[in-house]
Amino acid sequence: MKALFLNCSLKNSNEPSNTDALYKEAESIFHEEGVESETIRAADYNISYGISEDEGEGDEWPIIFEKVKAADIVIIGTPLWLGEKSSVATLVIERLYGGSGITNEKGQSVYYNKVGGVVITGNEDGAKNAARSILYAFSHIGFTVPPNVDTYWVGEAGPGASYIEANGHKNDFSVGHAKTMAHNLIHFANMFQKHAIPAEGNTME
Amino acid sequence: MKALFLNCSLKNSNEPSNTDALYKEAESIFHEEGVESETIRAADYNISYGISEDEGEGDEWPIIFEKVKAADIVIIGTPLWLGEKSSVATLVIERLYGGSGITNEKGQSVYYNKVGGVVITGNEDGAKNAARSILYAFSHIGFTVPPNVDTYWVGEAGPGASYIEANGHKNDFSVGHAKTMAHNLIHFANMFQKHAIPAEGNTME
Amino acid sequence: MKALFLNCSLKNSNEPSNTDALYKEAESIFHEEGVESETIRAADYNISYGISEDEGEGDEWPIIFEKVKAADIVIIGTPLWLGEKSSVATLVIERLYGGSGITNEKGQSVYYNKVGGVVITGNEDGAKNAARSILYAFSHIGFTVPPNVDTYWVGEAGPGASYIEANGHKNDFSVGHAKTMAHNLIHFANMFQKHAIPAEGNTME
Amino acid sequence: MKALFLNCSLKNSNEPSNTDALYKEAESIFHEEGVESETIRAADYNISYGISEDEGEGDEWPIIFEKVKAADIVIIGTPLWLGEKSSVATLVIERLYGGSGITNEKGQSVYYNKVGGVVITGNEDGAKNAARSILYAFSHIGFTVPPNVDTYWVGEAGPGASYIEANGHKNDFSVGHAKTMAHNLIHFANMFQKHAIPAEGNTME
Repeated sequence: MKALFLNCSLKNSNEPSNTDALYKEAESIFHEEGVESETIRAADYNISYGISEDEGEGDEWPIIFEKVKAADIVIIGTPLWLGEKSSVATLVIERLYGGSGITNEKGQSVYYNKVGGVVITGNEDGAKNAARSILYAFSHIGFTVPPNVDTYWVGEAGPGASYIEANGHKNDFSVGHAKTMAHNLIHFANMFQKHAIPAEGNTME
Repeated sequence: MKALFLNCSLKNSNEPSNTDALYKEAESIFHEEGVESETIRAADYNISYGISEDEGEGDEWPIIFEKVKAADIVIIGTPLWLGEKSSVATLVIERLYGGSGITNEKGQSVYYNKVGGVVITGNEDGAKNAARSILYAFSHIGFTVPPNVDTYWVGEAGPGASYIEANGHKNDFSVGHAKTMAHNLIHFANMFQKHAIPAEGNTME
Repeated sequence: MKALFLNCSLKNSNEPSNTDALYKEAESIFHEEGVESETIRAADYNISYGISEDEGEGDEWPIIFEKVKAADIVIIGTPLWLGEKSSVATLVIERLYGGSGITNEKGQSVYYNKVGGVVITGNEDGAKNAARSILYAFSHIGFTVPPNVDTYWVGEAGPGASYIEANGHKNDFSVGHAKTMAHNLIHFANMFQKHAIPAEGNTME
Repeated sequence: MKALFLNCSLKNSNEPSNTDALYKEAESIFHEEGVESETIRAADYNISYGISEDEGEGDEWPIIFEKVKAADIVIIGTPLWLGEKSSVATLVIERLYGGSGITNEKGQSVYYNKVGGVVITGNEDGAKNAARSILYAFSHIGFTVPPNVDTYWVGEAGPGASYIEANGHKNDFSVGHAKTMAHNLIHFANMFQKHAIPAEGNTME
């Protein structure tokens, strides 16, 4: 079983990410349960604008898309700006949407039998709004959204430290939620490996 | 298997509802597949404001809450005003949230192993925003959100006819989506009847 | 000059309100500047569901609507549930929308030359999302939205104290923002008293 | 008086834009009233990710930012994907936010005395959600949002033609709204040229 964490920080992987740090709490459960986990920093790739699975020359989205197709579990991570998900997260979702017309061997969207979750960090406010946006996108394009897969940390209103500097790992709510998310993602991925969603009423013509 | 449709129109059941009309398309699949379907018009009940499962004297939410607990599938219907779900839908979600601390026999939220969907109609714009809000709430409190459970109809920008008057039943996209939603809700409810979500990592202390 | 604060708490005025407490910071500026300020607890009134300025027998919205029409400044206050504005706030906005077809003596919406702001408190997350919703509604129906009129306080992620108990009045960001909001609302109300928005290109036929 | 239209299509200016086509309706009013109007296609520029006014080598945002600073009226245009504003629009707003700490000669945000509006097109649904997001961002960073500045066109639910192909210019609501927006933006820009927002209670330290 494979989990893919798409970290949509505005920064590339030369810089540390608060969202990565919170994801570690979920990843520890994946490791305990024998789930392979890969983290991608989206900003390391040259992802073109557009609504398709491949925008041609110079577009590195296809590298990421192959990893999405191979994953059972996909988690989108994002920071918060103006109380919303990042531009990079918006771009990643547009590209995922661009691939939603591709079908599996039964004629369902290629995202069927995959499960989605989110990990969100910001210095203050906006996590539920970003979760709402990303989880809806997942469901709209074919992923399943299990219960309690909206992991986040934010601090008190106003400018201030983010997750790492604020010792967010001491926040029982956020850390506990990361672990619940990981367990539920595994439960559902297991369920789909044994009992795929029947191809009845949900195939594309 | 039981499906409960909570229609959050601002009008009570003395008046026809566009959202009811679109729900019929999903309900026809429930009937074909032997799923019992009940429709509740929330505005027929005196639902008190508050965040609990019972706000005491005069509060009729407990009548609805019993039906929610007995259902395998819960679908929230809403009209659109200013591009958002109705005040009645907001109230219903607050009350569902107020009951999310109640647990099943395994110690999970009482909403575990239930699946949620939405049916939305407006004369124009706002359906995805309302779907986003309601489906996120479902997942946040313990429901599962299968793929493609956001059924909606809206017309072209500007004032104009709503679903019934505009012959929305001739819109293949909306009607087809209602049917896909119904099938996926049934698939997942079936799956949970046979294979409940394991009580590991997701119980409340 | 008159400011009207519509507090959309789920509780009536028999109970203290965190949102009222934060509003006091804005109100102190109104008092200093000679602006009359009235607070209405919406839950004290029997507000009917519907999209009109008067839903008939038993509907107490018209009492509030008269106060809105008489005000130069209208501020909506709301708590946060699931990261969104309250059902009471949603209802108040639907009713404000229901009155937006009424015109002033120049044929503009009755809300022209009025300015809007928000005061939001929650124990965690959702303030910007609620502000976004309310401020958009204001602009959509005819109010003006000055800069920096989104006053809020929220605490760190997870269950916890709200504004009063958490000593939110010590949060310089939230308190300072309340004061900036009050000043900008006064500046714009002053401007409109002297220079009303010209009735050109914005009247209703 | 200068109006700047920031078209955040995913496509560069080699391709026609539906949002440009709807903007023409507002622009005709600007021309009539002697307001200079410039259109920028954001995708023509290499805009770096980040929250600052200049991300250094290769970042072409500073070219756009100079135009923003010189404008009295700024209008953001966006297409809709999954019922939300585009990734390009999200990026542009992050960069505008990154410049909000810069002050004018009175110590207010550089965006004070500027007014904002939106033009949105999609084949279906999502316009009000995108408007809500962009107009809130404007107000949060210092712009003023006049009444009725949310111009949009969307078609009936489901796949279908967008503005140009669907003859959206025959939609009286959308076209009329574009003209009202243009008039109100001019009214407010005029007002600010004569009576700037007083620098009281709203300066940055």
